[in-house]
Amino acid sequence: MKKIAVFTSGGDAPGMNACVRAVVRTAIYHGIEVIGVRRGYKGMVDADFVPMTSHSVSNIIGQGGTILKSARFDEFRDIEWRKKAYDNLIAEGVEGLIAIGGNGTFTGAKLLMENFGIPTIGCPGTIDNDLFGTDYTIGFDTAVNTALDAIDKIRDTAASHDRVFFVEVMGRDAGFIAMQSGIAGGAEDILVPEIPDSIDEVIENLKKGGENEKPSHIVVVAEGEEIGNATFIAQKAKEAMPNLDIRVSNLGHIQRGGAPSALDRILASRMGIAAVEGLIAGKSNVMSGIINDQVTYTSFDDAINKKKPLDVELNKMVEILNS
Amino acid sequence: MKKIAVFTSGGDAPGMNACVRAVVRTAIYHGIEVIGVRRGYKGMVDADFVPMTSHSVSNIIGQGGTILKSARFDEFRDIEWRKKAYDNLIAEGVEGLIAIGGNGTFTGAKLLMENFGIPTIGCPGTIDNDLFGTDYTIGFDTAVNTALDAIDKIRDTAASHDRVFFVEVMGRDAGFIAMQSGIAGGAEDILVPEIPDSIDEVIENLKKGGENEKPSHIVVVAEGEEIGNATFIAQKAKEAMPNLDIRVSNLGHIQRGGAPSALDRILASRMGIAAVEGLIAGKSNVMSGIINDQVTYTSFDDAINKKKPLDVELNKMVEILNS
Amino acid sequence: MKKIAVFTSGGDAPGMNACVRAVVRTAIYHGIEVIGVRRGYKGMVDADFVPMTSHSVSNIIGQGGTILKSARFDEFRDIEWRKKAYDNLIAEGVEGLIAIGGNGTFTGAKLLMENFGIPTIGCPGTIDNDLFGTDYTIGFDTAVNTALDAIDKIRDTAASHDRVFFVEVMGRDAGFIAMQSGIAGGAEDILVPEIPDSIDEVIENLKKGGENEKPSHIVVVAEGEEIGNATFIAQKAKEAMPNLDIRVSNLGHIQRGGAPSALDRILASRMGIAAVEGLIAGKSNVMSGIINDQVTYTSFDDAINKKKPLDVELNKMVEILNS
Amino acid sequence: MKKIAVFTSGGDAPGMNACVRAVVRTAIYHGIEVIGVRRGYKGMVDADFVPMTSHSVSNIIGQGGTILKSARFDEFRDIEWRKKAYDNLIAEGVEGLIAIGGNGTFTGAKLLMENFGIPTIGCPGTIDNDLFGTDYTIGFDTAVNTALDAIDKIRDTAASHDRVFFVEVMGRDAGFIAMQSGIAGGAEDILVPEIPDSIDEVIENLKKGGENEKPSHIVVVAEGEEIGNATFIAQKAKEAMPNLDIRVSNLGHIQRGGAPSALDRILASRMGIAAVEGLIAGKSNVMSGIINDQVTYTSFDDAINKKKPLDVELNKMVEILNS
Repeated sequence: MKKIAVFTSGGDAPGMNACVRAVVRTAIYHGIEVIGVRRGYKGMVDADFVPMTSHSVSNIIGQGGTILKSARFDEFRDIEWRKKAYDNLIAEGVEGLIAIGGNGTFTGAKLLMENFGIPTIGCPGTIDNDLFGTDYTIGFDTAVNTALDAIDKIRDTAASHDRVFFVEVMGRDAGFIAMQSGIAGGAEDILVPEIPDSIDEVIENLKKGGENEKPSHIVVVAEGEEIGNATFIAQKAKEAMPNLDIRVSNLGHIQRGGAPSALDRILASRMGIAAVEGLIAGKSNVMSGIINDQVTYTSFDDAINKKKPLDVELNKMVEILNS
Repeated sequence: MKKIAVFTSGGDAPGMNACVRAVVRTAIYHGIEVIGVRRGYKGMVDADFVPMTSHSVSNIIGQGGTILKSARFDEFRDIEWRKKAYDNLIAEGVEGLIAIGGNGTFTGAKLLMENFGIPTIGCPGTIDNDLFGTDYTIGFDTAVNTALDAIDKIRDTAASHDRVFFVEVMGRDAGFIAMQSGIAGGAEDILVPEIPDSIDEVIENLKKGGENEKPSHIVVVAEGEEIGNATFIAQKAKEAMPNLDIRVSNLGHIQRGGAPSALDRILASRMGIAAVEGLIAGKSNVMSGIINDQVTYTSFDDAINKKKPLDVELNKMVEILNS
Repeated sequence: MKKIAVFTSGGDAPGMNACVRAVVRTAIYHGIEVIGVRRGYKGMVDADFVPMTSHSVSNIIGQGGTILKSARFDEFRDIEWRKKAYDNLIAEGVEGLIAIGGNGTFTGAKLLMENFGIPTIGCPGTIDNDLFGTDYTIGFDTAVNTALDAIDKIRDTAASHDRVFFVEVMGRDAGFIAMQSGIAGGAEDILVPEIPDSIDEVIENLKKGGENEKPSHIVVVAEGEEIGNATFIAQKAKEAMPNLDIRVSNLGHIQRGGAPSALDRILASRMGIAAVEGLIAGKSNVMSGIINDQVTYTSFDDAINKKKPLDVELNKMVEILNS
Repeated sequence: MKKIAVFTSGGDAPGMNACVRAVVRTAIYHGIEVIGVRRGYKGMVDADFVPMTSHSVSNIIGQGGTILKSARFDEFRDIEWRKKAYDNLIAEGVEGLIAIGGNGTFTGAKLLMENFGIPTIGCPGTIDNDLFGTDYTIGFDTAVNTALDAIDKIRDTAASHDRVFFVEVMGRDAGFIAMQSGIAGGAEDILVPEIPDSIDEVIENLKKGGENEKPSHIVVVAEGEEIGNATFIAQKAKEAMPNLDIRVSNLGHIQRGGAPSALDRILASRMGIAAVEGLIAGKSNVMSGIINDQVTYTSFDDAINKKKPLDVELNKMVEILNS
């Protein structure tokens, strides 16, 4: 293998740059040339390529976002666009691909691989931690700490005013960010899609807090929570307990940015190294991951289709820790 | 003067605790007893008093929120409640009051003072910086840095996706937080109530950014912006330029919390000292403030009624800095 | 079991308070009374006990340090003092102990247990991560991120001046903090006691950096590094390469403080719960830990005497990532 | 004026990049070309010039360090090297200079100006805040907050162990960083060169703390403190009070790095704009500064030679706030 390409796609996540850096430097270490594809599949189709040297990735390990940029490109579902992308890669002499992203990214990579046989390995880059085949995804730890920092700040004002806050955090269909930031933030209640909840239970819990003379109360609500978003649940709570001073805070896009945590930088570096060394070893159509601190490779099929379970024992913790 | 009371009221602001600490320790330094009133005017009416010692305020200089808590208490507009508050204070032996808060807080204090003659000095505690008689209010610098940190994070994801973000920040009717966090965050546009804007100008500016190949674009919108909130303005922009990838982020209550900045801790300490020493010197019905680094006392009337101007020259800076 | 005691001992670590909170609330959840022992073994001998309620641990999950305080007490090696401690505990009705700390803490606990049979479980609280029987210790992740933040700041000034920095980090005899903060900080070289190094290799590496036109260069040195401390190594490097602009920064005690990270708060909470539930289940003389995300109990003997290995593969990463 | 050059020199300071950005964009706004000189006077002599466009300074407003780099170059004291620098600038068509730095930087600029008449304006970039002619220098607020964050962390561990810490902060011959970070950090004592101190007073103060049952105690020591550095003073204290658990922490170079605070970014932007607009207006041989929130120009002579006084009233605050 003489030349590979690396790209980031889908929602950006802190640590993607650390992963790009690891891919570039590992390739150089093994005597392989690297190019970066800008803006994911869109750039592949537009031949928006940039040669990557060791210097290209200097001082990016601590930068949020992705220097290779990302973009939506739904047209990639059509084979004609994938053909164009493949032709561009071949014209450039690319013999292998490293795709950094989530579910959608790997779906595109799998199709490209299946259609044209170009060896491809994925690195799990998403703050949502919703990929099967790795304990943590790149960006998750940073997003949890960003959400936690926000919850800590909200706690200051909640406690000062004896207020109830419903704090909505990201996570798409999964409750990982909500569960971890909620436990770490000492939330009185955490609502995630993986665990059945009801408005009645939320209200019951609010009442219990009041009786225990815990007048401030924080409920962390996952983006994908099934009974509704934070605003909806807050309204229902307000209807049931009109005397409470209830507020909503949707943390939004701050959760995607910022300097990656140590854990995310190391994770991203290990996965980037594993991806390049996997390609060299002849692997393809897999995602590199870390399970129990060991590098693993999971087929794109499993990574995309299998559901990563949330440890529901954590919910028990919330109950105990609010005793 | 043998005994004074201190309380916080209105929206909490980082640095209020540093101010409480300074009030308590300055009183002790001058041989004056201090009690804290919990939950502002509500606690005054409920006689919810707590004796304050030097130890009561240990290690609070860096804590967000207010250990004395705050609460709304609209009933204080009725003189009968103010009478009750006054009677409680007298029963406790209180001879002077330090009120930490904003406009509404000082309005209550002024009425109490005018009705019953209890000497009162205010300290400007609000993140909004909208009080006449001081260059900065307690909490403003911290809130600006919190908003800036969020804008920096949003910039990461905006730049990665070539997106346009409308970021709404707090400030009530004033644009101080928006202007400072916007300039510091390198915002391409800043909308504040003090400066007339129009949707057309916003769109014009967006187009100019596109032509200059600055594909990511951040517009900071003050809470009090007259053409509408961030969501409304974003919709109008989307209608005019449907190809843009436009997002909205409302930073919300995170701006109220967090450890106060160095500037806020020092400011709060100076103002707290000045308030107690002002009471001792026989001042009353005034707010302590810092103008051009000098302690000043401004009448409650002026602090409440006069409008603190926003330096509109700053808007010129935004234009220059986006050249 | 009706009543237990909890204490912190040895060097403080961020997350100890989260662990104390979990111990207290888990005990309450299971109907067990809890007292806190202040200042570790010294307080046990002085009968410096404080009853712990749910409110005692409100809002401490995010606080650095330990509300129960810690102290050195070398006299505990004498059985007469341990007898005194035991008598005090018995007089208080204590039937089980939770010890939060490191090696020295567990050694004391083990002796107390062996002498008098009081059931005891330990929670691994030390920033150094040098305890066998758990993947991470409480405080390690926070300390790594604090060191990383410092390295990031030092990188700013190193890069501006083309300087070489030797940055000394904590970790006692182990290189965990050095290795993780070094990789995450993009260090050009990392010196840890677990891996044989030499001044010659350090200088060789510095020369290689110069040839690769990487004029700024950061070497992270573990406190326990065998060839000497950062100042010594820097002097040797200066002698060999007098033209280099070499500086030393010893990060020192900032690494012990600060709000714990999300990971540390969750880890501490899980370990605290596991410790109490272990006592209830009849376990003793063990440390609760988390290995591969599962709660485990390791005998004090193993925790104290077995050496936790540092993954030397990580050093290979450093070489690759500096290609 | 058609073309100007900008450079940074001396110790780097957070906000220098924000200043470079403002200089570049203001020049572009007024139709003036800009080049950057890399590594200060050394680059001027080496003709190490780089053209600066609006894009050159994108997304640097929040970056620590200086993208133009800095370097010592003592040879600039010889007129022959200044002649070389001047010739290089003239060959490049440079008609004006913006020098970002401190005392040494302005001394070089003044000589160059006096020898060859090239119009030059300085921007005060130093964390030490020791320049006459401006209330704040670029980087000071960030350095104070960085030192404060470290002191807050050290407070965690000091309080947990009832320890005394001597914390040494930067500031060269001035005590600004020490005074502000010390007051904001709630230090029990602050030693700065501007105020006469003695070991006896330090020890007296330590004893008073002990009597007030404030067992933890933080003394902030300015780098330029005349009775000695933190290590020396700590030794003397230990000799006098051998029972105290005394530690020293020298914060070191972390104080130079990091993302600049909002205040520093705005200050740097205003000063950069003022410098370019000053050059256009025909000013030279002056430093732009902000006094009482107004832009001012102070002669290099005054900026270099006059001593900026430290408000010694602040020391009185320390005494009051420790009551």
